[in-house]
Parts: sequence; C-alpha cells; structure tokens
Amino acid sequence: MTYELHYWDGIQGRGEFVRLALEEAGADYVDVAREPGRGTAAMFAIMKSESEPHIPFAPPFLKDGDLIIPHVANILLYLGPKLGLAPEDEGLRYIANGLQLTVTDFVAEVHDTHHPIDMSLYYEDQKEEAKARSAAFIRDRIPKFLGYFERVLRQNPEGSHHVVGNALTYVDLSLFQIVEGLTYAFPKAMANRKAEYPALLALRDAVAKRPNIARYLASSRRLAFNEEGIFRHYPELDSAG
Amino acid sequence: MTYELHYWDGIQGRGEFVRLALEEAGADYVDVAREPGRGTAAMFAIMKSESEPHIPFAPPFLKDGDLIIPHVANILLYLGPKLGLAPEDEGLRYIANGLQLTVTDFVAEVHDTHHPIDMSLYYEDQKEEAKARSAAFIRDRIPKFLGYFERVLRQNPEGSHHVVGNALTYVDLSLFQIVEGLTYAFPKAMANRKAEYPALLALRDAVAKRPNIARYLASSRRLAFNEEGIFRHYPELDSAG
Repeated sequence: MTYELHYWDGIQGRGEFVRLALEEAGADYVDVAREPGRGTAAMFAIMKSESEPHIPFAPPFLKDGDLIIPHVANILLYLGPKLGLAPEDEGLRYIANGLQLTVTDFVAEVHDTHHPIDMSLYYEDQKEEAKARSAAFIRDRIPKFLGYFERVLRQNPEGSHHVVGNALTYVDLSLFQIVEGLTYAFPKAMANRKAEYPALLALRDAVAKRPNIARYLASSRRLAFNEEGIFRHYPELDSAG
Repeated sequence: MTYELHYWDGIQGRGEFVRLALEEAGADYVDVAREPGRGTAAMFAIMKSESEPHIPFAPPFLKDGDLIIPHVANILLYLGPKLGLAPEDEGLRYIANGLQLTVTDFVAEVHDTHHPIDMSLYYEDQKEEAKARSAAFIRDRIPKFLGYFERVLRQNPEGSHHVVGNALTYVDLSLFQIVEGLTYAFPKAMANRKAEYPALLALRDAVAKRPNIARYLASSRRLAFNEEGIFRHYPELDSAG
C-alpha cells in the first residue's frame, strides 16, 4: 500500500525528517499536498473531521490504510522497521526513539529562535526577542545539542559511523537534516563551531553521498530551505557566538 | 527487577508523568534522587559517563537493568504494556504515543511561558517577555490543546471516558496531570474556560478517584507544585484571557 504523507506544501519543515526516511528506503509514498491539484484540502479534512476517531493535532501525519500516525518521531518509530531503518534489537529501538525525541526537542527550539513570543504573529513582530533568544541558542543550545550527538556517535560501541547500532537508521538521516538546517540558518555560528563535531560532520557527508539521498537532494522533490520553514536564515539572528 | 527513575528531586516536573504511571500500576520502582542520602549523583554519573553507550540528553530517564530509556513519551511507550497501561491493539499504541507526544509539545510550551528567551536565566530576568508569551499561551494555546484533547475524548468510538481505546492508559494519566498543572499555574484562565472541556474535566476527576492514584496524591511522594517546576504560578502571568 502507498504511504500518504500529509504535510504543508512549500517547506521542508518537520515533514522533511519523514521524507528523508521514505526516500532513502525507496518507499512507495505520496506527499499529498504536493500532488498536482491536491493541496492541503485532504490534510485539513482529516484534522477537522468530526467523525474520525484518531485526529492528529498537527501535520505532519502519515496515513497507512486506515491508520493515521501523527508526530515525526512516532511516524519514524512506525516506519523504521518496515523501511529497514531501525535497529534489529528491540532495546536499541527505544534508544533510537529517545535520540529522535532529542532531535524533536531541538527542532522546537530552532523554531522558537524566530518565534519566541507568539507563533500567531510574524517574525518581524517579535524581532528583538528573537535576537535575544537566538543569542542564547547559539551560545548554549547549539553546543549542548550538537555536543551531545557528537558524544553519542563517539561512544557508540559499534563505531562512530552511526548514532545507534551498526547500520544506518532514521536517526542518522535526521542528524543529517539538523546539520544541513543549522548550516543554512546560522552559517556564522556553524562555521565557528563545526570543527568541534567531526563525527557528526562525517555522518552528514556520508548520508549526503548515499545514492538514494543524493538522487533525492538533486531532485525537485527536495525543496530549498526558506523563510517559511523551521530553519530560517535571518542574518540579524546569526553570529559567530 | 526494580525500575529506577532518574529525575531531579524537589519538583514534579516531567518526571511526574512517569511517576503517575508507576503509581497507578503499583510498580516496583525507586525515585533514585529522592532515596535517603542519594541525590542526583547517580543521575549525573550516567549522563556524564564517557563509556556508557546510550547516554541520555536530559532527565527523566528510566533504568531497567542495563537499558537506559530517556524521554517521558519513550519511557511510557516502554512501560505502558508492562504496566497494563497501553492499548492491547498495536495500531492504537501508535495512537497513544502520538497523543503523548502532543502532551510533550504542550509541556514544552508551558515551560516557555516562564522562560521564553533564555533557559539559563531566571524568570525574573525575562519577566516582560514571559508576560507577552503567557498572554498568547492563554489566548491561543490553552484552547487549542485542551480543545483538541476534548475532541479526541468525544470522538473516541469506545466512549469518552478514555482518550484512546476502552480502558485506562498512561495518556489518561498524563491528561490528568495537564489539567492539574494548568489549574495550579493559570487558575484564572482555567476558571474562565473549564466549562468548555467537560470530558477532559470528567477524566481528571475519574483519575483522581482511582485508589492507587488517590493514595499517591495523599502521600509524601506527591510533591506540591512549586516555582521550580514546569507548571509555575506567577500571578502576573495569569489572566482570564
């Protein structure tokens, strides 16, 4: 059965973490809102349904037959074993899920760098607060999160090529996206610090070279980063830190 | 084997969502930092370990033998079936996990009402921004999240006594905690709106009356809400909205 990914059109956003897994596995899926002529109508119909028993709070969500699975980490937990992108060992699956939830938390903090006060307002309406939040993010949070992932890679008893176990998992793909997104949004901060994360940067390079990922990144299915998504480049928020 | 919960002493915090599940099930567990004479030394030893293969990013985490499981939703995913607090149906387990991840997102937003700019600073250092963020939270986010959970309860085909399936799950316990926490932190906002969430409030009352939960709430193991935790009562942040 074809997986249906429901997410906004026009941005990588949180949906991208799911797309990377589907693309790496060569899975049969449709990115519903980006199908010609479809848009987000089907997504909203599910979210606003008054009869659907399992309504999602927000996109992205995955539809696999009748099952509707919301939240990136939950979608990847579900898809991982089916796509060959989860550890075989059951205990390690909880380790992978825990790492993905740390990615989730970090992504929420990235979002709040440009929307620290009110997500119903524009960035321009909270720019001063965004500068203060971004300064703290660059100073404290980037090193804390990237330093953590670097340590996890280095302490992986199976070697530092993967963040969990001895083979590629969806978490490795998500870490690729984190590095890409931060490099887009905060190029000065990343240029200043990236030497501190050699294992993470090597993982980023290895993922980018995987044939299915390289093909995806070169395709029109990979949208460019932009200032509507999670990772936004506002030069006034970036600094070497 | 005795479960070890590693979390801060002195606050309910994120650990409370795990404690409620362990207490409801009458599970054999220790709240390590609150054991006489122990404190957080064991927690930090694991987090700072240079040899442990699966270090957690932050507390809470659960130790079950050699397995270290971080993140509330991940801990509950792991414990749910063992404690009889997860749906029997595998598909519904992903629904439960999705709901718990919506709880997780909401809890992060609650935290940011008092720390919108910089979590390394005190609340008092970001009070004006906290007022603006709390106003948006009361106006938009409380109704959005609680309205969502109310809808999910009402649309549960098994009846509105539980948020997923036909029996108590860990998500029901977490929703109890959400209502309790918001009522503590934002009493004016909640007094003004609670009539809009009858199913959620009925669930809160039903959970409070469960024998193991009632015993726990009356015990010294249940810490009071305070201004070091996630749900903090600062009168200047509260309003009828």
